[in-house]
Amino acid sequence: MKEKFLLKADHNLPPILRTEIRPDVSRQVMKKGDRLLIDLGNHYVGYFSFKLWWDDVYLDAPVRITFRFLETERELADDFSTYSGTLCRSWLQDETVNVLGPGEVRLSRRYAARFVELTVDETPRNAVLSDFCFTAETSADPASLIPCEIRDARVAVIDRVSVNTLKNCMQRVFEDGPKRDRRLWIGDLRLEALTGYYTWNNLALVRRCLYLFAAADRNAAGFLPGYVFEDKMFVSGYWFLRDYSLMYVCTLCDYYAHTEDIDTFTELLPVAKDMLSATKNLLDENGLLPEQRETFVDWCPGLEKRTAFNGIYLYTLDLFIAALKKAGLDTEDYETQLAAGRAAARKHLYNEELHAFVNAYDKEHYSVHSAAWMVLGGVLTGEEARDVLRRVMADPDSVKPFTPYMHHYAVDAMLSCGLRKEAEDYMMKIWGGMIDRGADTFFEAYVPEDPDFSPYNDRMMNSMCHAWSCTPSYFIRKYGFGQN
Amino acid sequence: MKEKFLLKADHNLPPILRTEIRPDVSRQVMKKGDRLLIDLGNHYVGYFSFKLWWDDVYLDAPVRITFRFLETERELADDFSTYSGTLCRSWLQDETVNVLGPGEVRLSRRYAARFVELTVDETPRNAVLSDFCFTAETSADPASLIPCEIRDARVAVIDRVSVNTLKNCMQRVFEDGPKRDRRLWIGDLRLEALTGYYTWNNLALVRRCLYLFAAADRNAAGFLPGYVFEDKMFVSGYWFLRDYSLMYVCTLCDYYAHTEDIDTFTELLPVAKDMLSATKNLLDENGLLPEQRETFVDWCPGLEKRTAFNGIYLYTLDLFIAALKKAGLDTEDYETQLAAGRAAARKHLYNEELHAFVNAYDKEHYSVHSAAWMVLGGVLTGEEARDVLRRVMADPDSVKPFTPYMHHYAVDAMLSCGLRKEAEDYMMKIWGGMIDRGADTFFEAYVPEDPDFSPYNDRMMNSMCHAWSCTPSYFIRKYGFGQN
Repeated sequence: MKEKFLLKADHNLPPILRTEIRPDVSRQVMKKGDRLLIDLGNHYVGYFSFKLWWDDVYLDAPVRITFRFLETERELADDFSTYSGTLCRSWLQDETVNVLGPGEVRLSRRYAARFVELTVDETPRNAVLSDFCFTAETSADPASLIPCEIRDARVAVIDRVSVNTLKNCMQRVFEDGPKRDRRLWIGDLRLEALTGYYTWNNLALVRRCLYLFAAADRNAAGFLPGYVFEDKMFVSGYWFLRDYSLMYVCTLCDYYAHTEDIDTFTELLPVAKDMLSATKNLLDENGLLPEQRETFVDWCPGLEKRTAFNGIYLYTLDLFIAALKKAGLDTEDYETQLAAGRAAARKHLYNEELHAFVNAYDKEHYSVHSAAWMVLGGVLTGEEARDVLRRVMADPDSVKPFTPYMHHYAVDAMLSCGLRKEAEDYMMKIWGGMIDRGADTFFEAYVPEDPDFSPYNDRMMNSMCHAWSCTPSYFIRKYGFGQN
Repeated sequence: MKEKFLLKADHNLPPILRTEIRPDVSRQVMKKGDRLLIDLGNHYVGYFSFKLWWDDVYLDAPVRITFRFLETERELADDFSTYSGTLCRSWLQDETVNVLGPGEVRLSRRYAARFVELTVDETPRNAVLSDFCFTAETSADPASLIPCEIRDARVAVIDRVSVNTLKNCMQRVFEDGPKRDRRLWIGDLRLEALTGYYTWNNLALVRRCLYLFAAADRNAAGFLPGYVFEDKMFVSGYWFLRDYSLMYVCTLCDYYAHTEDIDTFTELLPVAKDMLSATKNLLDENGLLPEQRETFVDWCPGLEKRTAFNGIYLYTLDLFIAALKKAGLDTEDYETQLAAGRAAARKHLYNEELHAFVNAYDKEHYSVHSAAWMVLGGVLTGEEARDVLRRVMADPDSVKPFTPYMHHYAVDAMLSCGLRKEAEDYMMKIWGGMIDRGADTFFEAYVPEDPDFSPYNDRMMNSMCHAWSCTPSYFIRKYGFGQN
């Protein structure tokens, strides 16, 4: 099966489209120590090249140049040597090359950048640099981009930046971040695919990613890994995130809902069933998922995730039942599970007195995450859902989302229970806030009260073009935000 | 004419032969900060590659590795960051690469090295390095190497190291040094070609270099540049060395003497005549070359070079006349010049009282260089020559040669006047001294009393495999050193 799935993934490998970005920078005569800053005018993913030539006299020794590729203007002031985060420093995009003789120089590494900073460390005499070119790569085809008229100027900007974010993450797979990680994660995939149906509409890329995960090695409990590698070779990931395994099911259901491609749905249906079955195996005597090990939900430090995880399970069951119905398949067993799960959640996770999802499972933790996922899981509906959501979001002491991944589901939860204005306001606050910070693409993490927050203990490591942050276009285009 | 010469140079471009050197280094499991030293077992010129793989877990971030390529063991202790020489620091062979994902890694720059030192600067987890390979390149064909039996073990070692030095300098052209400069200089060419006739015997490479210089742009006085660039494109050099222009004539005469290729000789004869004519134009009222500007001779600080330059001119005339005679051409004019030049040198440059070339032209400077070149130029002969040479070499206050380039002509001068034992002893002292210092190839500069001497004010910049140092094989094989 693995080989068959990998073959199908290969068949769906999209062509990579290349665009040469030629910044308006004149020929530079540079001596040792000279620095040049190139603004590409937008955020791109790809390869950098330039022409190295001599001025009055031939360059008779190697020219040594150090480059830094920066996703945002703010990073220009960063000193990489002070990096102290938890992830490997080599993700920071700097490079030193030695070039002997004139000619075209093409750096071999792929970068994600709006700015290119270069410093001539060593040169035997004046070096002339010119013909700067950033060859941008993406599998997003402009000919496929679904047009959308947006009246509100600010919403139009948010849509444009969302579309750009998704474009730059669309490569051989839906990458999470083209600067860092550069790999296919299920959680990102689900939101990229979803936004893609309203924007770049690259169905082959979704199929490819679904097949890649279908080929992955599961853990002993039967879950899929959170990510796979596929660039140089196919390698299964070694982090297993149970909520992400469920997001695989959601991605398949979304795909089928949008494409009606019954063949793919049928072929991958066993994988989806396996994920639901593996999750069901975790249920305790109350019919609830009692553990939060191997779940993601969000990057908030200290987040208690059991309630949210239960909500994700119910949300997934709900989507899955709809997909089975659409395919004319039997749903009874799953409907029974969903009803039982909702009842159990209401009974044990919801605090009727407090009108909040504050419970023993989550050590009385009070978070937007719990409420949003319980609403998305259909545990509360209507006014009750609206009331719970409104209050947890307004409470200064509740735990709030840190990543646009969770911001997305908060918006989705609001929309699902009719808080449309609140949803739109929330989108304007979060994604609009990034626009106010000069975003060409949306960031991996955004906490309005703590814009320097990093899951990796150093802002420099954050990915400033991150897949899971591209979803405003989904809301804008599906729900007509800014179009009335 | 330029295009025609360049075309001929192209036609004589030799094939580059590649040999994979696979050092006996096992698979290395390396973590951040780990260092590995690879001994290639000999000095080679070429490209380095290895396989990067993961250990227990896939490498999910770029692995950053810093390399240093070192020509000799002694350089292992060098700290490149303290470099303070006059030439561009980028010649020092270090490199940092960032590699994302497993696979073969091939550094793009060519290196000259016996040792490869690598340090893992950053890695997300254990990295496995293996399959280390140095792909050595040369245009010296082992099938063409002229065999030579040498009885004396030490002389045999000197011969082997000479042959290796020349091999590693033989690339697309006769390079001066494969680590630094990496270009075709006339002075080096002459000695490489000469030694080549007794060793690698690559006649096409000599022709190629002769045609490249024939295509070069001359200065206002009519001299050839000391070097040309031809790797990425043909570019004439901007340093004009008059003695090197004369060495072009010598190289052509040697070539003709060894090959009897009258077509090439005839085609390039006008270039040789131009060089002699340009030199003749410099003669003063005494019939001597009064200036030392734009001459090389040797790297000794403060060297007065007028006498030596006169000797080089006379030596060149002598070789040229022999070549003309061999070709059946008229020599009368050049013989007249030679006789007049020798007489003028004897009269104005030789101090009959001191039995030394101490004169006003050279500010009473006393050097081996003057004496050796005067002897080679035929100004003194027989016992007179032997006496003068012996005394200047024995005098502790005389200026001695600093480079094997000049060491070569000192040996040649001794041989030319019958000081065969002294010549052999001198070779053993100079080149044997380098052997005692662990040479796999002979060095650019070697002063027995000051082995750290650098023409560039920092030993780290010295080229430890330098073309002009390869000539012991010429002496050994032509004169039978160590074979009796």
